[in-house]
Amino acid sequence: MLTIKPMYNAIKMNMSELKNNKIFELLVVAVIIISALEIGAKTFQLPDSAVSITEILDVFITVFFLIELAIRFIGDDDKRSFLKKGWNVFDTLVVVISLIPIDNSEMALLARLVRIFRVLRMVSVVPELRVLINSLIKALPQLGYVVLLMFIIFYIYAAIGSFVFNEINPKLWGDIAISMLTLFRIMTFEDWTDIQYETMEVYPMSWTFYLSFIFFTAFAFLNMVIGIVVNVMEEEHQAAKAENAEKQPTLAELQQELKEIKSLLAAQQK
Amino acid sequence: MLTIKPMYNAIKMNMSELKNNKIFELLVVAVIIISALEIGAKTFQLPDSAVSITEILDVFITVFFLIELAIRFIGDDDKRSFLKKGWNVFDTLVVVISLIPIDNSEMALLARLVRIFRVLRMVSVVPELRVLINSLIKALPQLGYVVLLMFIIFYIYAAIGSFVFNEINPKLWGDIAISMLTLFRIMTFEDWTDIQYETMEVYPMSWTFYLSFIFFTAFAFLNMVIGIVVNVMEEEHQAAKAENAEKQPTLAELQQELKEIKSLLAAQQK
Amino acid sequence: MLTIKPMYNAIKMNMSELKNNKIFELLVVAVIIISALEIGAKTFQLPDSAVSITEILDVFITVFFLIELAIRFIGDDDKRSFLKKGWNVFDTLVVVISLIPIDNSEMALLARLVRIFRVLRMVSVVPELRVLINSLIKALPQLGYVVLLMFIIFYIYAAIGSFVFNEINPKLWGDIAISMLTLFRIMTFEDWTDIQYETMEVYPMSWTFYLSFIFFTAFAFLNMVIGIVVNVMEEEHQAAKAENAEKQPTLAELQQELKEIKSLLAAQQK
Amino acid sequence: MLTIKPMYNAIKMNMSELKNNKIFELLVVAVIIISALEIGAKTFQLPDSAVSITEILDVFITVFFLIELAIRFIGDDDKRSFLKKGWNVFDTLVVVISLIPIDNSEMALLARLVRIFRVLRMVSVVPELRVLINSLIKALPQLGYVVLLMFIIFYIYAAIGSFVFNEINPKLWGDIAISMLTLFRIMTFEDWTDIQYETMEVYPMSWTFYLSFIFFTAFAFLNMVIGIVVNVMEEEHQAAKAENAEKQPTLAELQQELKEIKSLLAAQQK
Repeated sequence: MLTIKPMYNAIKMNMSELKNNKIFELLVVAVIIISALEIGAKTFQLPDSAVSITEILDVFITVFFLIELAIRFIGDDDKRSFLKKGWNVFDTLVVVISLIPIDNSEMALLARLVRIFRVLRMVSVVPELRVLINSLIKALPQLGYVVLLMFIIFYIYAAIGSFVFNEINPKLWGDIAISMLTLFRIMTFEDWTDIQYETMEVYPMSWTFYLSFIFFTAFAFLNMVIGIVVNVMEEEHQAAKAENAEKQPTLAELQQELKEIKSLLAAQQK
Repeated sequence: MLTIKPMYNAIKMNMSELKNNKIFELLVVAVIIISALEIGAKTFQLPDSAVSITEILDVFITVFFLIELAIRFIGDDDKRSFLKKGWNVFDTLVVVISLIPIDNSEMALLARLVRIFRVLRMVSVVPELRVLINSLIKALPQLGYVVLLMFIIFYIYAAIGSFVFNEINPKLWGDIAISMLTLFRIMTFEDWTDIQYETMEVYPMSWTFYLSFIFFTAFAFLNMVIGIVVNVMEEEHQAAKAENAEKQPTLAELQQELKEIKSLLAAQQK
Repeated sequence: MLTIKPMYNAIKMNMSELKNNKIFELLVVAVIIISALEIGAKTFQLPDSAVSITEILDVFITVFFLIELAIRFIGDDDKRSFLKKGWNVFDTLVVVISLIPIDNSEMALLARLVRIFRVLRMVSVVPELRVLINSLIKALPQLGYVVLLMFIIFYIYAAIGSFVFNEINPKLWGDIAISMLTLFRIMTFEDWTDIQYETMEVYPMSWTFYLSFIFFTAFAFLNMVIGIVVNVMEEEHQAAKAENAEKQPTLAELQQELKEIKSLLAAQQK
Repeated sequence: MLTIKPMYNAIKMNMSELKNNKIFELLVVAVIIISALEIGAKTFQLPDSAVSITEILDVFITVFFLIELAIRFIGDDDKRSFLKKGWNVFDTLVVVISLIPIDNSEMALLARLVRIFRVLRMVSVVPELRVLINSLIKALPQLGYVVLLMFIIFYIYAAIGSFVFNEINPKLWGDIAISMLTLFRIMTFEDWTDIQYETMEVYPMSWTFYLSFIFFTAFAFLNMVIGIVVNVMEEEHQAAKAENAEKQPTLAELQQELKEIKSLLAAQQK
C-alpha cells in the first residue's frame, strides 16, 4: 500500500505535463472539430453505413473526452477548487450528460443537444477564445443600468401597447410578454410599418407611439455602444499611463529636483 | 398650540431621516416592482379572484405612494422649491392622477395609463438611473443643429415627394405629414424598395430621390454619432486634464524655475 | 450727378449694417419658416380662401427674398466676388427662378420645386448650419478612395449579376444599372433573401455571391466610418496640440535651458 | 549576337521608365475605364453595329493589357520574384484567361467573367487603392479569434436549429448548411419574425432561440467593431509617440540632466 502514493504522484506529474503539452492540446482541438463535423453530418440525410460510422465516432468522442477530463482532474494540483472554475464545471457537465445513452426517451433529446455543446468546448480549450469570452463577460456589468433603463422603456411601451392596441391585433399585443416581443421586432425595424399602419387605422396618432419608442431605444442603444467604447479606451489609456509611470518620472518629481538645486545654489550664495 | 411647532420639527427630522434611509429606499423600489408586475399581470386573462387581488393591490400601491410622497415633502427642507425639481413634479403628477377612480369614463383611460408611468418612478427613485437620464438629456442640446439639419432634409424631401408622387400613392405621399412618416420608414430601410418600384413605374429616374435621401440622412446620422463620440471623449479628456492639472506642475512652471536658477547662477558669476 | 456716389455709399453702409443686424437675420429666418409652412400647407387639401392666401403669401415671400438679396449685394464690399461664394449663387438662383410665374407650363413644375429649395436657404442664412454643411463637405474628399473602391465592388458584382442572373429575373438583373440598384437594395438588407432564394433555385451556390457582396460592402463601409472617426479625432488632437504649443514650452526647450545651466556651472568650475 | 544584351538593357530601361511614367499610368487607367464601360454596355440590349464595336474594343483591350503586362515584366529588375507579388499574379491571370476566345463552350463563361475582373485591375494600378486594400487585408488577422467565436456561435445555433426545427420548415432548417444561411438572414434582421412565428406555433418558447442568437451575434459584432477601432487608434497613437520620441527628449532624460547638475553643484560645494 505504501507504493500507491508515490506511484500516484508520478502519474499526477505525468498528467500535469500532458495537460500543458501543446500536442495534447492540438489533439483535443482536433477531436472537438471532428465532434463538430459529426454533429453537422448528422443533420444531412445519410446512408446507413455513414450512420453507423457516426455512432462509432460518437462513442469514441465520448470516451476521449472522459479520458481528457480525467487527465485534467488528476493533473490539477488543487482538486477541491477544480469545480469552482466555471469552465471546468461546463466541461464536466458536457461529458457527464454525454454518457446518457441516446434512445427515444425525453432525456435523449437533452443528450443530443448537449452533444452540440461539445463544440463550445473549443472555447474552454483554446486560451485565446477563453480570454475573449472572459473580457466580454467582464464588460457586461458596466452596462447594467443602461440595460435596466432599456428594460423599463420596453416594459412601459409594452404595457401601453397591450392596453390600447389589444383588440386591434391580439397576436401582436395580446399581453405584456407578447407586446415586448413585438417591440423587439419593431426595434429591429422588421416590418414595423405593417404594425404601425394597422393601429393607425384605429388611432391615427399612434405613429407617435412607434416613433418615440424607436427614438428612445436608438438613443439608449447608442449610449450603450458609446459607453463600451469609452470604457475600452479608458482602460487602454490607464494601461498606457501605468506603463509610462514605471519608466518616466512625473513632472512633480522634476520640480522637486529643481527645488533641491535652487536650495543648493541658495546655500552656496550665503 | 405651542407644542405643534417642535412636534412638527421632530416629525420632519424623522421623515428626513426616513427619506434617506437605505431600507426605506429598497421598500419603495420593491413596491414599484410590485406595481409593475401588477400592471403586467392585468394584461393577461385573469381569473376573477386574481382580478380582485389586483384591485386591492392597486389601492395599497396608491396609498403607499401617497404616504411616500408626503414623507418626502415633509422631510424636505425647502418646501417652496420642492415642485421646482422635475422629478418631484413627475412623482406628484403620477400619484395625484392615480387617485382618480377607474370607472368607464374617459378620464379612466388616462388614469390607467398613468398607472403605467409608475414604473418610470424607478428612474426617479434609483439615483444611478437618474444620473443616466440626466446625462442623456444634457447630451441633447449639443445635437441641436444636426437634428435641425436632418429636419430640413426631411421637410424638403417630403415636400418634393408630396408634390410629385401625390397621385401615385396618396396613402404614402398624400400630404407633407404623411410623406415625412414615409421618409422615416425609408430611413429605417423598411420595405423601401416597394415604394421605390411603385414610383419608378411612373418616373423611371425617381430612384435618385430615394438614394440621395438615404445618403443625406445616413451622412447626417453618421455625423451625429461621431459628434456624440467626440463630445464624450472631449469631456473625458478635459476631466483627465483637470485631474492632472491639480497634481502636476505645468511645463511652463518648470521653465520658470529653470530661469530662476539661471539668474541665480548668473548672479554668482558676477 | 455728383451726389450719386456719396448717396450710394451712404446707402451701401446702411445696407451693410442691416445685413449684419441680428433682428434683420431673425426676420429673414422667420420669412423662411413662413415660406416652409406655406409649402407644407399647399400639400394639404385647402379651401379656396386659403389657396388665395398662399398665393398672396407667395408673392410677398418672392418680393421679400428679392429685396433681401439686393440688400446683401449692395452691402457687399467686393461685388465681383459676390457670385464666387457658393451660398450666394444658391440664393440668387433660388430667388431668380422663383420669379418665373407658376402657370401650367413645364417650367412651372421647376418653379414649384425651386420654391421648396427656399427651405434650404435656412442653411445659407443660419451661420451654425453653414459651418456644419461646410465641415461635412470638407470631410468628403478624404473618403474619395473608399467610395471609389465601393463603386468598383458594386460595378463588378452588378456585371456578374446581370451576366449570370439576367434570365432569372430581368426586373432585378436586366442590365448593369438595374443590377447596381438591386445591389444597393441588398446592401440595405431590404428583402434580400427573396432575391437570393430566387437565384438559388437555378444556381444553388449563388448564396456565395450575396454573402461575399455583403461582407465586402460591410467591410468597406466599416472602414469608411472608422476613417471618418480617426480623421475627426486626429483634427481634435492636432487642435489640442496646437493650443498646448502656444502656452507650454516643449521638453526640448527645457532641455536646452538645462544645457545652458550646465555650461554655466562648468564655466564656474574652471 | 553580342549586340542583343545591350539592346535588351536599353529596352528594359525604356520599359522601366515607361512603367513609372505618369501619363502611361493614366493611359492604363483610361483603358481600364473603357473596358469597364464596355462590360457595362454589353449588359444592355445593343444594336448589331454596337455589338461589333464592343467585339473590336475587346480585342484592342486584350492586346493593350498584354502589351502593358509585357512592359511591366520587362521593366522589372527582378524577374524571378515578379510572380511572387500578389497583384502581378492577379494581373497575369486576368490577361491570360482573357486570351481564351469567347465561343459557346463552358470555358467561355469563365472568360466572360474574367473580363469583368479587369475592372479590379483599377486596384492593382492605382497605388492609393492598393494601399487601401493592403491595409484592409492587414486588419483581418487581428479579427481572427472574434470571427472564429462568431463561427462557433453560428455552428451551435445551426445544429440546434436543424435538430429541433427540421420538420417545421426543411427549406430553412433542412441541414446545418441551410440553417447557417437562415441564421445569417436572421442576423441581417431580414423577415426574421416570419421564421420565428412559424416555429413558435410548435415550440412557443422558441423565441428564446432567436433572441439569444441576436444578442450573442450583436455582442460579438460590436466587439469586433470596437476591436478594429481600438487597433486603429492604437496604431495612430504609436505613430504619434514614435514621431514625438524623435524630436522630444523624455522626462527621464531631463531628470538625468538635473542629476548631473546637482552632482556638479555638490562637487562645487566641497
